[in-house]
Amino acid sequence: MARVGSAARAAATVMAASPTQARNAALIELAHLLRASVAALDVDNARDLDAARANGLAGPMLDRLKLGAKVIDTVAEGCEQLAAMPDPIGEITGVKRRPSGISVGQMRVPLGVFGMIYESRPNVTIEAASLAIKSGNAAILRGGSEAIHSNLALWRLVQQALTTAGLPAEAVQLVETTDRAAVGRLIAMPEHVDVIIPRGGKSLIERISAEARVPVIKHLDGNCHVYVDADVDLDLAVKVTDNAKTQKYSPCNAAESLLVHERQAAAFLGRIGAIFAAKGVECRADERAAAILRDVPGLAVQPATEADWAEEYLAPVISVKIVDSVDEAIAHINRYGSHHTDAILTTNHPNAMRFLREVDSASVMVNASTRFADGFEYGLGAEIGISTDKFHARGPVGLEGLTSMKWVVLGNGEVRT
Amino acid sequence: MARVGSAARAAATVMAASPTQARNAALIELAHLLRASVAALDVDNARDLDAARANGLAGPMLDRLKLGAKVIDTVAEGCEQLAAMPDPIGEITGVKRRPSGISVGQMRVPLGVFGMIYESRPNVTIEAASLAIKSGNAAILRGGSEAIHSNLALWRLVQQALTTAGLPAEAVQLVETTDRAAVGRLIAMPEHVDVIIPRGGKSLIERISAEARVPVIKHLDGNCHVYVDADVDLDLAVKVTDNAKTQKYSPCNAAESLLVHERQAAAFLGRIGAIFAAKGVECRADERAAAILRDVPGLAVQPATEADWAEEYLAPVISVKIVDSVDEAIAHINRYGSHHTDAILTTNHPNAMRFLREVDSASVMVNASTRFADGFEYGLGAEIGISTDKFHARGPVGLEGLTSMKWVVLGNGEVRT
Repeated sequence: MARVGSAARAAATVMAASPTQARNAALIELAHLLRASVAALDVDNARDLDAARANGLAGPMLDRLKLGAKVIDTVAEGCEQLAAMPDPIGEITGVKRRPSGISVGQMRVPLGVFGMIYESRPNVTIEAASLAIKSGNAAILRGGSEAIHSNLALWRLVQQALTTAGLPAEAVQLVETTDRAAVGRLIAMPEHVDVIIPRGGKSLIERISAEARVPVIKHLDGNCHVYVDADVDLDLAVKVTDNAKTQKYSPCNAAESLLVHERQAAAFLGRIGAIFAAKGVECRADERAAAILRDVPGLAVQPATEADWAEEYLAPVISVKIVDSVDEAIAHINRYGSHHTDAILTTNHPNAMRFLREVDSASVMVNASTRFADGFEYGLGAEIGISTDKFHARGPVGLEGLTSMKWVVLGNGEVRT
Repeated sequence: MARVGSAARAAATVMAASPTQARNAALIELAHLLRASVAALDVDNARDLDAARANGLAGPMLDRLKLGAKVIDTVAEGCEQLAAMPDPIGEITGVKRRPSGISVGQMRVPLGVFGMIYESRPNVTIEAASLAIKSGNAAILRGGSEAIHSNLALWRLVQQALTTAGLPAEAVQLVETTDRAAVGRLIAMPEHVDVIIPRGGKSLIERISAEARVPVIKHLDGNCHVYVDADVDLDLAVKVTDNAKTQKYSPCNAAESLLVHERQAAAFLGRIGAIFAAKGVECRADERAAAILRDVPGLAVQPATEADWAEEYLAPVISVKIVDSVDEAIAHINRYGSHHTDAILTTNHPNAMRFLREVDSASVMVNASTRFADGFEYGLGAEIGISTDKFHARGPVGLEGLTSMKWVVLGNGEVRT
């Protein structure tokens, strides 16, 4: 790993100084190679799929492992979209003349080397590689052992694209061993690696965070709240709450907790309860909410326990609580939430502004579905991950999260007195 | 410490939502209390000074420990300057309408709770407290045991100012015990503390970084370079190099290494050598530079070892090397430098731009003294520290380094499809 790290560091220096055009050309070439290699990639992917089946892997796990023409076309298109985006590197902002005579501003530069640790889905190999290329960084990728043949095949295309564009092939390296100790070494080389980005389950991320000796862009739980305020457009509230909870159950930005102002409780809970009943969503409700929800035909209602307020179900289950004020809603969210994404549905402007300011979450929303918390929806073009931390990057992390700002000073012989 | 941490977290929530005016009023009141308490503070400071003398502390250490009317006036003025600055909190930037109909932007919010660990100088207590108040954060301060009576007295004024302004006194807490284990607990409470800022020697910072379980804003070495290019105004080069090296020897932004293009070596080294000889600055030179410098009357010249290229002397010593190109200069700086501050002196525009872009340091300068790398000189108004990291904040860290950007989404009932 030290050899891999040292090669990455050397490649990062070349990438940082490389022309915009070379990096874009590598992305276009990579898209071309991906589309031209559908059949060949299928052979390597089949080896992983066969091994997974032999190991008794189940349906959804197999689905995530599968490449195929459609997935390949999507990642190829992602490369082309990145190539078309403005270069984040070299941007100079805020240059101001100081009383001493010097001009001071900031220049956006690559972070250097990032390590990406992920599971199952081999398309992450291309997503991470293409973000590294565009942002002028080097990357060390460590995919899941179950996808090793697919990842190796994809990585060979990345190396070919880099070489064709005149960039160092070592700018994107794949850890070829499936030895688990390699991860331990990757996260403890501050001299070679500037940041670690894990994508996977909570236990993987917690373990990496505890053991890493470099910064980690962490993505932990998404216990997202929808709060229906006292003043609200009920039709809007029903539509948005339905979407936030039921459009998909598994994403981290799906709603897991519903807070309703007591003034709207009877009217709103009756309507959303009917939708939940029709879609098979179970409610874990406090006493007051349960008293209303139990009247909804066909709705599963359970009493909420303390643990329910903090739970990320990722399933057709939602906790429901009636509150008496926007203050109570904000306090509840800051206490039990996971600082991911929370929304207020209201027509009251002061309450909207207080919610935006006081809810301590990476994304705070007014009258929109929590499901919008996503790099593409936010216009970042691509997403390397979602951060539940406050340090460096918060919420969806795009190309800018892979950069830092250094100070530039332009003088004409000024000295300090 | 858990009790202190939990009180800080609660106070941070109140501070984040507090009016701009209350935080500014607390700063003005603190300045007033400081100026009115010069005599009282002198009594507490004398207890620390007496103990230090009894423990055999030497001149410079005693100087750093001393408060006195002038130091108190300086920190009081710092509080007033902070009060006059714009509030960093609540700024909303970059709001853009997305194709889905939602508007997405970012809002600047406090980080939450920071821990500050520092040595000797009691004025840091006021600097850290005032930055916490202005930025809407809570702070837990841990000063050196040798300054405990001065720090306690200053802290009581901070608490009084907070209370008078209607803000929670727990927004700034001082660790009252001088027990060293308290530091170990402070840096390992991610549930209560968001970031640690150590100010002190390299060994303190390395130990804290290794043991911390939260992010650390690290300030390690300053091995700053001045590179004199082939095309250069020699008068400017002599003036700036002299200032960068000799204006003060102890700051981290003083030059420690001098690189000279071979075309200017004879003319430039003769002139700067004469100044170094007059000021008693010793040169550790490579063979080619030594051959020229040995002809300068009265100049101490030693052959440079490999270790000299990486050394932060903080003393009247400088390493000197002749290079054959701007490429060699950049490569040398990136290899041996500490990524703190480096300057090129040149009239050649392409070389200036390459240096700015390719030197991987927190501050890169053209035709200006490295001594300018400082929060006040950069216009940040105040400086909580200098970061030699790339993550989150790089170089001088002002109020913005104590904040993070959260996403705000403004909708009108939009849902994800």
